[in-house]
Amino acid sequence: MAKAPVLTPRADDFPRWYQDLINKAELADNGPVRGTMVIRPYGYGLWERMQSEMDARIKDAGVSNAYFPLFIPQSYLTREAEHVEGFAPELAVVTHGGGKELEEPVVVRPTSETIINEYFSKWVQSYRDLPLLINQWANVVRWELRPRVFLRTTEFLWQEGHTAHATYEDARDFAAHIHRNVYGDFMFNMLAVDVVLGRKTRRERFAGAVNTLTLEGMMGDGKALQMGTSHELGQNFARAFHTQYLSREGTQELVWQTSWGASTRMVGGLIMSHGDDNGLRVPPRLAPTQVVVLAIKEDDAVLDAARTLGARLRDAGLRVQVDDRTDTPFGRRAVDWELKGVPVRVEIGPRDVAAGTAMLARRIPGGKEPVALDALPGLLPGLLEEDQAQLLRESRERREARTADVASIDEAVEAAATGWARIPWADLGEEGEAKLAEQGVTVRCLVGEDGSVPDSDDAPGTVALVARAY
Amino acid sequence: MAKAPVLTPRADDFPRWYQDLINKAELADNGPVRGTMVIRPYGYGLWERMQSEMDARIKDAGVSNAYFPLFIPQSYLTREAEHVEGFAPELAVVTHGGGKELEEPVVVRPTSETIINEYFSKWVQSYRDLPLLINQWANVVRWELRPRVFLRTTEFLWQEGHTAHATYEDARDFAAHIHRNVYGDFMFNMLAVDVVLGRKTRRERFAGAVNTLTLEGMMGDGKALQMGTSHELGQNFARAFHTQYLSREGTQELVWQTSWGASTRMVGGLIMSHGDDNGLRVPPRLAPTQVVVLAIKEDDAVLDAARTLGARLRDAGLRVQVDDRTDTPFGRRAVDWELKGVPVRVEIGPRDVAAGTAMLARRIPGGKEPVALDALPGLLPGLLEEDQAQLLRESRERREARTADVASIDEAVEAAATGWARIPWADLGEEGEAKLAEQGVTVRCLVGEDGSVPDSDDAPGTVALVARAY
Repeated sequence: MAKAPVLTPRADDFPRWYQDLINKAELADNGPVRGTMVIRPYGYGLWERMQSEMDARIKDAGVSNAYFPLFIPQSYLTREAEHVEGFAPELAVVTHGGGKELEEPVVVRPTSETIINEYFSKWVQSYRDLPLLINQWANVVRWELRPRVFLRTTEFLWQEGHTAHATYEDARDFAAHIHRNVYGDFMFNMLAVDVVLGRKTRRERFAGAVNTLTLEGMMGDGKALQMGTSHELGQNFARAFHTQYLSREGTQELVWQTSWGASTRMVGGLIMSHGDDNGLRVPPRLAPTQVVVLAIKEDDAVLDAARTLGARLRDAGLRVQVDDRTDTPFGRRAVDWELKGVPVRVEIGPRDVAAGTAMLARRIPGGKEPVALDALPGLLPGLLEEDQAQLLRESRERREARTADVASIDEAVEAAATGWARIPWADLGEEGEAKLAEQGVTVRCLVGEDGSVPDSDDAPGTVALVARAY
Repeated sequence: MAKAPVLTPRADDFPRWYQDLINKAELADNGPVRGTMVIRPYGYGLWERMQSEMDARIKDAGVSNAYFPLFIPQSYLTREAEHVEGFAPELAVVTHGGGKELEEPVVVRPTSETIINEYFSKWVQSYRDLPLLINQWANVVRWELRPRVFLRTTEFLWQEGHTAHATYEDARDFAAHIHRNVYGDFMFNMLAVDVVLGRKTRRERFAGAVNTLTLEGMMGDGKALQMGTSHELGQNFARAFHTQYLSREGTQELVWQTSWGASTRMVGGLIMSHGDDNGLRVPPRLAPTQVVVLAIKEDDAVLDAARTLGARLRDAGLRVQVDDRTDTPFGRRAVDWELKGVPVRVEIGPRDVAAGTAMLARRIPGGKEPVALDALPGLLPGLLEEDQAQLLRESRERREARTADVASIDEAVEAAATGWARIPWADLGEEGEAKLAEQGVTVRCLVGEDGSVPDSDDAPGTVALVARAY
């Protein structure tokens, strides 16, 4: 007897599946103000794990955390011409504070390059103060006309790194280091998303940057998601905010800067990369809960066995939750953990206790089999690493299978209906890019023929990766 | 030859000393919008340690983190009458978003009881869903007329816990648990501030609460600082937002609630509790850097010895920084670490390397002495625990020495010029409290004669602690 599906099947309606999953796995709700979201405890637990893993990598890169104000004087935004042009349409503006109309309205930060440069220009005096490497974990606001939970929300959470360097080369290398060794490493090894590292075209650059590096993931429906970006800002903001230093040679020089960010959008990317028709599948290295031990029914021996196993698995270094809510039917709880994508369920009932076994259900490869209780602490760490590898492999295989080499704009548009297209950038060019854009297809990034990140838009052999995107 | 003081001496001008210290130790700057602040990396490092230690205690209490939107529809605030009356004068209001005037203005959260209840009322259906225990780490905005960095800022960072319970007793006990076992434990054992745990009078309660529990610390100038509060909300917000549940008996019941918060204000409390005329003194358990190893001058053997010692101290479980910036004069660096209050400095020069020793400078008891390099990894953990205990002892001794038992309002006002006063609440009463308030003196909290937290304002033997406060 076929059960009614818990979620709208992906093949029927991918966006509806996404929204169903977010509701039923209790990841997030829509907020009361249009485009905002409430991140529920399970969704926030995923974000906390992302934060903690990203934060460690950011600190390893020599960066310190700090905190800059939410409110930015409107006048700051206008100092860098491209920047204000990019962000003006998305700003939220505070006009009243403490019961009075403000003399100068303040904007709620859409990003912090301007206010951070105001302080960098005070803190940086000499070459000894460089490089200055700062990051902040914060909320930002960009008014969204077509919001979608996690992917495009009026308020989102992110980290934004901001650095100042003495030379162009140092800034360029640092932006590349974050791109590959912080974001790339995190996305491959923790999120298990086989992202492509590339360079944005001029059209797709961050407002105010001279170069934007990106990480693009292919989602379950073949569309692209920009999962993080690292920008070379050149001296644009330094010029606007007079951020300069006294060189060893005694001259005043403008600093060279970078900024880089990754956000709660990654939670959306996680869902759309690894989710299936039964719910989410969380990569074990990321999972807040790697193993849930379910007591099937109220029974002292069962509860005792479940708690003892839970403690032994924790001692083995795993993140474990014991589900002893036996006043909720077992079947409903099992479906719920499947929806939430916890990698391993261990189910224990009275017969299992008598036999010294448990039922092992693996969310990622699927399937269920009985296993000796005593074997689990030794067995599970290896199985979880297999699961992690499987998700990354599936992500890579999907990207490879659904990326087509094409030779014309029409072919690119056709390929973008189900996946990505690769086309030589020399053949496409900015004119071709504009034509694609008319049909909702964008150049996600430029890559070298060998998969490297090109040094410039016109490096020989550069290929454009073209897709529809979230 | 006496050196010019680095900071304004505390005895000359305590508020100016506080501001000097914050500037020179590079803890924070004023933000461009009135009352906002920039938390610099060293100040933020203190906050990160506070967050991590508080977060662990909050999770141990069974609470999960989540995130609710920054923007709250103005109409939500008005649903609980006392709440809106308390917060209306401090609100920041967004009237424009995405280039258009909004149909309904939204407020920037001053606290989140209202928006959280909107969601609790959806999530709570049955007694099985209770208790619901949620916390969020977030920024909040309260327009401040007399801002002071860390102590009272228009935007500040905090955690706010929000819980819903099936019974009055469960909510009351949970508020008390957070008060004593989360906040109290953290402030005694990490911050080393000998706070008094007490109950607020009706006049000083949180807007919308039926009872507010507080932790009050005595600062270096004898004034009080409220360092955290835990509120019983009764059913006030539940009634306003229809947050109800189906009981075991099949009836619909309103939930009982708590909320509780502690903020970046604690950084101000840390400074004013432990700082001296040479700068900050950070309790070792809290300190982001417990030990700094200074290479006195550029010399391969010195740098090598400093780095080797740093690695050995890290292996001993300490948080260590190696200062090898030998292009900055040693004296300036030593003063800087003293300002920043790092508990232990280990200074290594060429003669030390030759002798196999280093100079050990302890910030908290003061003093300097030569110590064998090899002895340091074994020695320092114990010394740091001594330092931690010394700070707590000093905090307790100051509070005891500067608290006077008084019998009249005039005496209370006089005592509040230099410290705190204790007066029987039955003698003071709400009328006496109002008279004190006219002279800028407030009842910080009510405590039992034995130091316990009274169950009600009129419990026999209740004593009022009275002071000027930040």
